[in-house]
Order: sequence, then structure tokens, then C-alpha cells
Amino acid sequence: MNKPTPLSGFPELLPEHRAIEQQVIDTLRRVFELHGFAGIETRATEPLDQLLRKGETSKEVYVLRRLQAEAEGADSGMGLHFDLTVPFARYVLENAGKLEFPFRRYQIQKAWRGERPQEGRYREFTQADIDVVMKDDLPFHFDVEVARVMAEALSALPLPPMRLRVNNRKLIEGFYRGIGAPDPAAVITIIDKLDKLPAEQVATLLREAGLSGEQADQCLALATISSADTSFVDQVRALGVEHDLLETGLAELAAVIDGCSAVRSEQFEVEASLSLARGLDYYTGTVFEIYMVGYEFLKSVGGGGRYDALASDGKNTYPGVGISFGISRTLVPLISRGLLSSDRKVPSVVLVALADEESRPASDAVATALRGSGVPCEVAVSAQKFGKQIRYAERRGIPYVWFIGADGGHEVKDIRSGEQSTADPASWSPPESDLRPTVVRAENQ
Amino acid sequence: MNKPTPLSGFPELLPEHRAIEQQVIDTLRRVFELHGFAGIETRATEPLDQLLRKGETSKEVYVLRRLQAEAEGADSGMGLHFDLTVPFARYVLENAGKLEFPFRRYQIQKAWRGERPQEGRYREFTQADIDVVMKDDLPFHFDVEVARVMAEALSALPLPPMRLRVNNRKLIEGFYRGIGAPDPAAVITIIDKLDKLPAEQVATLLREAGLSGEQADQCLALATISSADTSFVDQVRALGVEHDLLETGLAELAAVIDGCSAVRSEQFEVEASLSLARGLDYYTGTVFEIYMVGYEFLKSVGGGGRYDALASDGKNTYPGVGISFGISRTLVPLISRGLLSSDRKVPSVVLVALADEESRPASDAVATALRGSGVPCEVAVSAQKFGKQIRYAERRGIPYVWFIGADGGHEVKDIRSGEQSTADPASWSPPESDLRPTVVRAENQ
Repeated sequence: MNKPTPLSGFPELLPEHRAIEQQVIDTLRRVFELHGFAGIETRATEPLDQLLRKGETSKEVYVLRRLQAEAEGADSGMGLHFDLTVPFARYVLENAGKLEFPFRRYQIQKAWRGERPQEGRYREFTQADIDVVMKDDLPFHFDVEVARVMAEALSALPLPPMRLRVNNRKLIEGFYRGIGAPDPAAVITIIDKLDKLPAEQVATLLREAGLSGEQADQCLALATISSADTSFVDQVRALGVEHDLLETGLAELAAVIDGCSAVRSEQFEVEASLSLARGLDYYTGTVFEIYMVGYEFLKSVGGGGRYDALASDGKNTYPGVGISFGISRTLVPLISRGLLSSDRKVPSVVLVALADEESRPASDAVATALRGSGVPCEVAVSAQKFGKQIRYAERRGIPYVWFIGADGGHEVKDIRSGEQSTADPASWSPPESDLRPTVVRAENQ
Repeated sequence: MNKPTPLSGFPELLPEHRAIEQQVIDTLRRVFELHGFAGIETRATEPLDQLLRKGETSKEVYVLRRLQAEAEGADSGMGLHFDLTVPFARYVLENAGKLEFPFRRYQIQKAWRGERPQEGRYREFTQADIDVVMKDDLPFHFDVEVARVMAEALSALPLPPMRLRVNNRKLIEGFYRGIGAPDPAAVITIIDKLDKLPAEQVATLLREAGLSGEQADQCLALATISSADTSFVDQVRALGVEHDLLETGLAELAAVIDGCSAVRSEQFEVEASLSLARGLDYYTGTVFEIYMVGYEFLKSVGGGGRYDALASDGKNTYPGVGISFGISRTLVPLISRGLLSSDRKVPSVVLVALADEESRPASDAVATALRGSGVPCEVAVSAQKFGKQIRYAERRGIPYVWFIGADGGHEVKDIRSGEQSTADPASWSPPESDLRPTVVRAENQ
């Protein structure tokens, strides 16, 4: 085989970078589980008709064909999932009789999209989703809960600060109804373009959709409102529009913003952002988007919301609320720019040196003792000069080298500081912080 | 959507069963890392020409096509990987300049094969691979190391005992050369059929391949030899065949069997098994197969060996040795037969009861305190009668319910024993064994 070249859109990580991703996944999982979310995995494939229900991504699906399928080129009728929501909805319906509701689940898995690769957008990517799903009726406090859980999880990551933008579909739809817009859904779609088009162009589109100049101005005025606290409520009221749905939406959005006060920090910003619409038509209340502060060019790195009918089998309806976070979308750009690194290429904390090939059993015994105390380690490959063995450790970022003297005495050397001391393999352990690779984050220039 | 039905060959687990799989994966990973193996993930896709190099599985590949690809039915030239060895070899070549050798890596990922689904054989499955790869020359002691590491990992799982069968290609090839077999490779292929065909039929095949009756008998005599210790060496010598390669193979196999003496237990058997050949042609020395004791009808649940040219780019050759273990192949049959279960459908250890909706902040505060001590928990969905809240916990297998009294006092009840006592949310924690779901294994009938 000639030296293969990387495949565009299918990022792969070196071991020292995979260690970062693994720590991120471990942290997310730990926080999700602390909040009672159960982990599941779904198969990689879904029936094509299910994958193609959502118009937006229909052209980006990878279709599967078995090589030995009889008819040349006959597809299997299956494709790779492009998100974790379609599979989750199917999983809930398929297993409804065996699940306990509310069903809090997290899912950290790969998904695939055939779109044009660019920084932060990949053809294969890993994402982490949390959702709470209920049968028939899902209390509103779960909207607050998923925001809090994701906030707590993301705040624990070694990443730049995140900003959670929150809005409410009832709020904006009620507002559009209150001003007498003929087709509120059309207005949502147009307002959603505000992050790509200048305000005047959006106003033109709104007028083309049948709104008066005054109505269009009201819509744009609403979209300019944002606040880190509940002061948005008064700003909306100042626009003088009245509608029951608007009131419900205002109360719900205020409850989410209020409910997030405890998770707000320098590492995690939360704001009511009334321009946020999210194009997808299945959201029915709260909507979320997550941005990485300083990396807004990556667009949203997560999002979600409430859907009053995540799934339905005719008899039962399953409302849900959830948030998704893009692991590849955030990590791969930071790693490839050198802004996120780790200090170790291997899990080993200790290299047990080898005096000569005959003493391999003695070195193996030290390694076994250390592993018994939970200390990852490896034994030197061959009995090279100790200087070479130390450089072996240095190249891998292994912080300690263990020596067995000719007299059978044990010494361990921290090769970062050069400090060396006698040690007992049965009881020695490094500081907690040395047990795992340290993830180092540099500031963006 | 109508109620969807499961897809044959694509097993999915309920949350309480996924918890078992997750614990298995965590345990494997912990042991692999204790031995200095670094985790990597490779993309799901490989170029078709690489996937089709191995004849055996060529017909079972899933080919990918982007739905929006211009030409109708044009494949992408990519397929889903059917194992983790082909992707790993490509990864080593692609990143050789950035990796440190010896490169110890583990990889726990899904793979896909379009073969006919049956118990233990799935179209989508998860496996765990460990390999050590070197540049140019890989010392033999790594053959012993990978066997030991996998033994230690599998012994720590809540599964039936495993049996590791070991043989050596040099041993059998040297033996076949020693008796003057015209085509030793052909003999290996025929001897590999011994687990499917009766001995006489295999003897016939050997004679058809050009062996004399006496040579065929010698081959069959070799294949009957097995031993849990190094006594196989004398049994082979008693057949009176001499060849340098045979001697090397005997010494290597004896070293692996000897080297495994410390990991041998009731939970893990190791035996030299001279009938083992493994059909794949890239093995060059040690070969391994793993069987689950009592479940031999599943065939091997793992395997591997040494390949002196895992990968080569013309300039450099990368020899390797590794073992693979089938996670889906072992877990899915045990779970679906009810022989492996867990006592909890959620990670929550505590359900914090809710006296009334007004006291939700107080219950939330208890949950926050418990999470601060690393105790997974959830707050009741609504202020139902306490009896109903306890039954909610019971149905999920949550062992503790936390009550806040009207006087503000805190009590925690172990709903398994009925024992209830006062507790402080800031300092209470359950016994270590309650922190995670318990995996329960029943004996096969």
C-alpha cells in the first residue's frame, strides 16, 4: 500500500488528541449520569424514508448497498443517520412498552452527512445529545432541566466559554399573530435569515410575504431584543402587542432564563435572544442554540428545543425537549489550530526501566504492583542505556521512570523536575493530577 | 409513523442493557490503559479497494453512495469497515511519522458486515481490539504481552469464563515442511477445517492435496495435541519430526503458554491447541482464538495473532501482534437469553421526593448537593403521593428515596430494605457498590 492520505471531511485524531476527545466524552457522560440520564446507542442505519422526511438534509444522506446484493446497484433502503434525533424518535416508538417515562437519555455517537466539508462541518462527526421524553404530556420544568444539565456539562469542559441563546416559538408566533401577520410560520422562516441577510432585505422579504411596512418593522424590532436576564419581557411589552400565546411564551422564556441563573458563569453565558427561530418546523416552544465564544464563525455548535410530538404511533404521542452538542465541531478546529493539546501520547504514568533482559520479570512485577494501585504503566521495550530509556519516556510525555537498582532497591524519577526518590511499588502513587493526560488550552490569537 | 420493528442483524439495547455494555467497555478500557495502550478511533469508512483485498469478507461489505451524487447509483468508492484491523493498518501508515513506536493501541468501535444474521453474528457489532505495532522489528515478548493484557481484561468482565487457545504458524508450517509436505500453506487451509469436518474427511482432503497416507496421519496427529501447560512440546517431539522452523515455533508457543501462567484462573483458561490454524493468510507466528466456555456454539468470540507485515508502504514495514474481542458477539446472546441483566434502568442512585410543587427548589438543592458528592440522582417529576413516588423509584431500580420533612429535616430510605434514617445532603453517600447498576449473571440452563 502506498502512504494513504487523509479523507476530506472524515477527521481522525492522533492518540494524544483522541485522549482529549475521550476526556470530553467522559466529562459529558459523568454530568449527564449525575442528573439521571441513561446512555443509549442506536444503530448507524435508518430506513431511507425516515431519513428523508426532513427536507433540509435529504440530499446529504449516505445510502447503503450490500456488495453482494443481487441486483446491480440495488440500495438496501437504508442510510446512515445524519443526526441522533431521528434514530431516537424511532427507538422510543419501537421500545415504548419497555421504557419508563419520563425517559431521560443521553447519546454520544457518530453521525454522517454528505455535505461539502469545511472547518467545523464534517462528513463524519461525533455529537452528544440529551433529551427528556414523556408520554402524552411533558411538564415545562424539563425545558429548564435540559438547559441546566447541558450548561453544567459544557462548563466542565476544557473549552472556550459557551453562549446559550434561548428563545420561544410561542412567544414569536404569538407576537406575529398579535400584529395580524397572515402566515406566522412564513414569518419565522424569514426572520431565521437575519444572521445571513441585512435587516432591510429581511424587511423586504416580510413585505413580500404580505406584511405591511409597520408589521415588518414590529417583527424586526422584536428580533433586536436580547438580554442576559428577564428584562426582555418589559422590552417586548413596550412594543404594545397583545396575544395569549405571546404571554405564554414570555412566561416560559423567562422561566428558562431564570432557571439558568445558577449555571451562569464566565464559562457559560445564557441569553434570551428573540431573533433566534431555528428553521426546523418541529419545535413548538423553547428553542436553544449554543455558540462557542470567539468562534462564532463556526456558527452554532449545538442546539435543540421542545417538540410536542417528537414521535407518535397514532395511539400515543411522545413530547420531548433536548439539546445537542457538537463534539467534532468544536474539538477538531481547536485541535487542528493547535489551541487544544495534551501532554501525553500514551496513558502510561510510569515507564519501568529495564536493567537487562534477565531482569524483565522484576520490572514486570513492579508494573503489576503499580497497576494494582490503578497506575497505568509500561515496561521498557529493551535494556537500552538508561539515558535512552528516559528519552523514550520523554518523547511520549510519560512523567515518571522507575529504576530497580543492582541491590534490588527501587527509585522513581520525575523526569520533568529531575527529582528522584526511593519508592515502594506496592504503595507508591503519583499525585492525582498525573494520573491522566493534562489537556492544555491556548488562547486564540 | 407506525410502530417500527427491529432490524434483523442490528441489535439495539434497552437502557438497562446498555448499562451492562457500557460497564464492559469501561472495564476493557481501564485494563488496556493500565497497560499503556492508547485509545484511538478510526473513521467508519475505508476505500473499497482496501476492503476487498481480503477475499474472505469481500462479499459482505456495505458500499456507500451519497444520495446527491450526480450519476444515478454511482458509488463513492468507500465502504464501511468490517473489522478494525484494515483501518488500523491504514492509520499506522498514514500517521507513521507522528506516532511513537512501539505503538500500543486499543480500539473499541463498531464494524459492519452484510452477512446473514444469526445469534452472535450481527450486521452491526462492537468489538475491542488491542495491537502492538513496531517499525521493522517487533520483539517476541509482545506476543506474550497482548495475551496477558487481554486475559486480564476479560477476567475482569461479568461474563462466563473464557478459553484462550494458542498455536503458532511457524510450529505447524515447520512440522509440515519437516514431513515433506509439498505445499504447507495448503495443509494449513485444510487442517483449519477440522472444526467443521470429521478427521477422515480431512485426511482425504490432505491426500488429495498430494500428501501420503502417512504424512496425512502425521498432520492429524499433530492437530490432536493440546495442553494447558508446556507438555505439548514433548508430545510434538514424540512424533519424531525435525525442522528448524518447528523448533522456533515450539519455543515461541511454550513462551506464550508459560508467560500466561500468572493470568490463568477459573475465569480464564489458556491452552496450547495445535489444531488451531486461523484461515487468514497474514498471520506469521503466534495465533489466538477465544471461546466462551459453555457457549462454544457461538464459535470463536475473539482472535488474533502476529503478522510480520501488518502494513508496509514500500519503505518501511510495520509488524504487529494483536487480539480482538467481540463485545456484541458475547453480550447480545447473553442479554437476549436473560442470562445477563442489570438492576437499574437509570443511573440515578437517589430519587429526591417532592412534597409539593412549591418545594421544588428545596428538592433541587438536595439533588445538587448529592451530585456534588458524585451521587447520580433525580428529582420527582411531580408531587404525587409518596407511595407513588416510591413506586416510581422501584420501577426504575433506584435504590434510595430522599424525603424532606415539613420541619425541613432530611431522611433517606433504602427502598430495598425499608430502612430509613436521617441524613445530611452535604455529606451522605451510599455504599460504593450502589453507585453503579449491578450486573447480574445467571447460569446457562
